[in-house]
Amino acid sequence: MRMYDIIQKKRDGRELSDEEIGFFVNGYTKGEIPDYQAAALCMAIYFRGMSDRETVTLTECMARSGDMLDLSRFGDLTADKHSTGGVGDKTTLIVAPVAASLGCVVTKMSGRGLGHTGGTVDKLESIPGYRTTLTEEEFIGQSERIGIAVIGQTGNLTPADKKLYALRDVTATVDSIPLITASIMSKKLAAGSKNIVLDVKCGSGAFMKTIEDAEKLAKNMVDIGKGCGRNVTAVLTNMDVPLGSCIGNALEVKEAIKVIKGEQKDELYEVCVTLASEMVSHVKKIAPDEARRLVAEAIDGGAAFEKMKEWVDAQGGDVQSITDTEYLPSASLIYPVLSDKDGYLTGTDAELIGDAAMILGAGRASKEDSIDMSAGIVMRKKPGDKVKKGDVLCHLHTCDVKRIKQAEEVFRSALRFGAEPPEKQGLIYKIIR
Amino acid sequence: MRMYDIIQKKRDGRELSDEEIGFFVNGYTKGEIPDYQAAALCMAIYFRGMSDRETVTLTECMARSGDMLDLSRFGDLTADKHSTGGVGDKTTLIVAPVAASLGCVVTKMSGRGLGHTGGTVDKLESIPGYRTTLTEEEFIGQSERIGIAVIGQTGNLTPADKKLYALRDVTATVDSIPLITASIMSKKLAAGSKNIVLDVKCGSGAFMKTIEDAEKLAKNMVDIGKGCGRNVTAVLTNMDVPLGSCIGNALEVKEAIKVIKGEQKDELYEVCVTLASEMVSHVKKIAPDEARRLVAEAIDGGAAFEKMKEWVDAQGGDVQSITDTEYLPSASLIYPVLSDKDGYLTGTDAELIGDAAMILGAGRASKEDSIDMSAGIVMRKKPGDKVKKGDVLCHLHTCDVKRIKQAEEVFRSALRFGAEPPEKQGLIYKIIR
Repeated sequence: MRMYDIIQKKRDGRELSDEEIGFFVNGYTKGEIPDYQAAALCMAIYFRGMSDRETVTLTECMARSGDMLDLSRFGDLTADKHSTGGVGDKTTLIVAPVAASLGCVVTKMSGRGLGHTGGTVDKLESIPGYRTTLTEEEFIGQSERIGIAVIGQTGNLTPADKKLYALRDVTATVDSIPLITASIMSKKLAAGSKNIVLDVKCGSGAFMKTIEDAEKLAKNMVDIGKGCGRNVTAVLTNMDVPLGSCIGNALEVKEAIKVIKGEQKDELYEVCVTLASEMVSHVKKIAPDEARRLVAEAIDGGAAFEKMKEWVDAQGGDVQSITDTEYLPSASLIYPVLSDKDGYLTGTDAELIGDAAMILGAGRASKEDSIDMSAGIVMRKKPGDKVKKGDVLCHLHTCDVKRIKQAEEVFRSALRFGAEPPEKQGLIYKIIR
Repeated sequence: MRMYDIIQKKRDGRELSDEEIGFFVNGYTKGEIPDYQAAALCMAIYFRGMSDRETVTLTECMARSGDMLDLSRFGDLTADKHSTGGVGDKTTLIVAPVAASLGCVVTKMSGRGLGHTGGTVDKLESIPGYRTTLTEEEFIGQSERIGIAVIGQTGNLTPADKKLYALRDVTATVDSIPLITASIMSKKLAAGSKNIVLDVKCGSGAFMKTIEDAEKLAKNMVDIGKGCGRNVTAVLTNMDVPLGSCIGNALEVKEAIKVIKGEQKDELYEVCVTLASEMVSHVKKIAPDEARRLVAEAIDGGAAFEKMKEWVDAQGGDVQSITDTEYLPSASLIYPVLSDKDGYLTGTDAELIGDAAMILGAGRASKEDSIDMSAGIVMRKKPGDKVKKGDVLCHLHTCDVKRIKQAEEVFRSALRFGAEPPEKQGLIYKIIR
């Protein structure tokens, strides 16, 4: 078998065999197939696409390229949740303990943030003492004991994806639906959960800018996940606006606690309830509506928050900082951005708001940057709100006064105003099961 | 400027600017742009194509990537001829001295053969003493003195093409018309001639298998060559059958001498007269028909053969071996392949016949192989000929008895027989000016 023939076959629009896909993934992971041939193949896939069978095989080969977590001891109770990345997305902090409080086993490996999107692991590290690294024994043991463990990515999971993603990132071959699907789903397969709920973001702050593209990706991920023997639901959600009011690590933990305690029932709450319901529905084999009722009870009755405290405690975090969020990191400077206009806030560019938070210290421009856990933005107006000159649009939180001016400029550039209120948009576009 | 953006732009079907193409060619030649980004761009070009303006710029940038021969002292008298490569193609040996005898300045750098196609430089080296390497001073001086010099490729001509061709060869991005055009025409530009005649081969023994593809390529090369300020004609010729009867280095020199002396007026003669007429037509600014009359005169009157002797002599070759071809290398074994069928020879696969000649020692399977100058094949039957059982189909020439059996098998597999004669096909499909 020769890599040349595989590239040519895909280039000419023919379907690759399982053997050919395996030959490519294994050879590339081992370094036997050079980057330039992999790049040519990725570009051919960009143009020619892949059949579902090809994508399933690619996903499985990539999943098997490294370690695979064995969660078979939990039977069908394991549930994972994945977001395609957005601004202000703290849903894992809420959804994981809610689902665990209802009998799901949530053994989750999360990523760090880069650019305008935050990472769950960074957010968790703003809780004093929280350990994002556990041994495999600790990780599995904790999941057995309390049904939840959330750590950073560890071990040698999907090395094929790491290598291929880095290559796609510099050869303009990232936005190919089968390649995105294989990248995401191979990680989910290797992470071992039987039930998977995907939060597919769509809009200015997300990777997929249009609903059509996001829906194509979501459908493909659901099909491929099922093809690989998992139960999968995808929830299409709006990412033109940051999710919730807070962007920044400690700020987002504080907001998550409000939601999980039932004190904030906004669109963020709605997204979290939907995601948790889908997980519970799969694990308990009940209808999504029934699961939804259980989820609402877990939040309102306090079981979800109890599970969160148990979880944070188990991973070494300071539970007092959860029960009294005054103990979480706070910024030394809080600067209001005032409206210079009368009218309605009609829309935002979530990516720019993410950039403004990053400038304040909440995120990394490059992998080596460190993070100010207290930095970020609290939005005081959301699209649809009436605004008067002098109203506070947001508060910028930072410990570095020099960052405020630029952050304010970027934040202002993210807002659109008008004389009329915009048409109201729901946050959830569609659920694909 | 970033290579990433250039790949993305082409991937999305947008036209690259001159600056972007220059950035790519220079960066890639210098090694600043990695192979994997160049491979991704080539695959995007394979799918999206290039406008004529883009191809002209790519061609010019590649031509300027290394040394360029300055032939300005010859004004508009310089004429070059390029063949896209075929089996038994000895046209340069004939066309170059014919054109030179009529006032063209033919300063030609030719290639070596690889695989089933032979190289002019290898053929010339079968003439005892012929030097295929000259200094630039010798090369230009000889061209000034006698109007003709033919050497191997020398100096640092089009390093961008060398590097890019090697990459395309392993990434299934060779058969892209704009990339083929830029590769061929950049070499022609760097070689400096004002007038260029292209022999675009089409058929089983050629790179382009169909007339449609060959015509597209030919049109593109003519347009791009004109866009780069040269006079260009392309002649589309059939390469389902080897050109002439002889395949193999010394055998082809012998056949070329017969044609140039007016002793063999077959289809090979016809192709050579057409190619030479187009060169003379450009250089003397006369109609092709008038040029054709001059070319026939030069052959029949002996001026062309005189020019050939002058040329071989100037480059150190033994003129006696030209006037009496008994002095050229001859094989120690000449083996007849006999027909085991009655009927008509209806067609041949020229590539397989080339392979058979290679097996006999006439060509190289890899760059390092050496060549037996005397080895090759003399065809005794051509498509359309009636064949009786026991008739000689060809003679295999070699110095190594062990090669005969395999060569015979391959040769036989290249022939198609039938009960009826095939439709007669002309060798020249079209002339594109």
